[in-house]
Amino acid sequence: MTMNGYTDDKADVRKRLSRVEGQVRGISRMVDEDKYCIDILTQVAAATKALETVALSLLSDHLSHCVAQASAEGGEVAAEKVREANHAIARLVRS
Amino acid sequence: MTMNGYTDDKADVRKRLSRVEGQVRGISRMVDEDKYCIDILTQVAAATKALETVALSLLSDHLSHCVAQASAEGGEVAAEKVREANHAIARLVRS
Amino acid sequence: MTMNGYTDDKADVRKRLSRVEGQVRGISRMVDEDKYCIDILTQVAAATKALETVALSLLSDHLSHCVAQASAEGGEVAAEKVREANHAIARLVRS
Amino acid sequence: MTMNGYTDDKADVRKRLSRVEGQVRGISRMVDEDKYCIDILTQVAAATKALETVALSLLSDHLSHCVAQASAEGGEVAAEKVREANHAIARLVRS
Repeated sequence: MTMNGYTDDKADVRKRLSRVEGQVRGISRMVDEDKYCIDILTQVAAATKALETVALSLLSDHLSHCVAQASAEGGEVAAEKVREANHAIARLVRS
Repeated sequence: MTMNGYTDDKADVRKRLSRVEGQVRGISRMVDEDKYCIDILTQVAAATKALETVALSLLSDHLSHCVAQASAEGGEVAAEKVREANHAIARLVRS
Repeated sequence: MTMNGYTDDKADVRKRLSRVEGQVRGISRMVDEDKYCIDILTQVAAATKALETVALSLLSDHLSHCVAQASAEGGEVAAEKVREANHAIARLVRS
Repeated sequence: MTMNGYTDDKADVRKRLSRVEGQVRGISRMVDEDKYCIDILTQVAAATKALETVALSLLSDHLSHCVAQASAEGGEVAAEKVREANHAIARLVRS
């Protein structure tokens, strides 16, 4: 059985992603229907924020489970997990 | 006929949005298949960046057309367009 | 006499920048005094937000004055002003 | 003796913060000298990015030391450190 940081929150993560998918589809429809630029931009900003929330939730689960467990075991694997998490955080902060 | 800032780029905006929709669906699939948290986060960051690119392109078209045209006409409508654009930019910078 | 978008808000922009300078100096002092990492990070996030507010205010003034005026005059100068503003916005959204 | 995540990088963090302080002072000077809005915005974006780099470095040190060590010890303190780090990351991503 695969255990990931998000395993316990899987249903919640899936639901949030479905909602983002619906938001993006809704934005496409607004473009098709020639909606006003600013109204489309408002929806794009909302979808972006929703994706960020998914990312923060995945990251939080990852630190609480995968990184915490590796740190408890220590050694090179632990150091590598922390490096990997740091890179993921940098990508999020800069995106 | 409705004219929006993005009218000339409509096909391009639609294509980008379809791609983002595909990315988000791909992320849901990764969650279903219990993929590794960090790999999912990498895809979420990519989708976020892609949405930001859509937003910047819509905004650029909006400034080049709607705002520029209103400014050429001047008066209260022009001032209102600029205020509205400023709010949209603030939402983007803070999202 | 030089007229910039921010000329009317100059005192306000200067005051905000002095405050950011003070915040950054305060963060240096926290580092010197070995304050707790998380408390320092909270102050760094606050200073970053304060800088973003300065940027949004400068940009808003720029659109309301420089870009609006160039658009009213039209032609290649207007187009160039809009391109320039778009690049500045992209830098802000991605920083 | 106080040990923080950044203790080993203290000189480097201090140097980066002094540089940001100098950048912000330079921006104030540009405003005083009525420099062009867009040139000022470019410097504000650079200072913002520099602050983000400081934050990412502090956070990375914090995860590598404080959080890793607490996780190795386990228990409620470890859980609390992870929660605290998650909040700090959320503030950064949203700033």
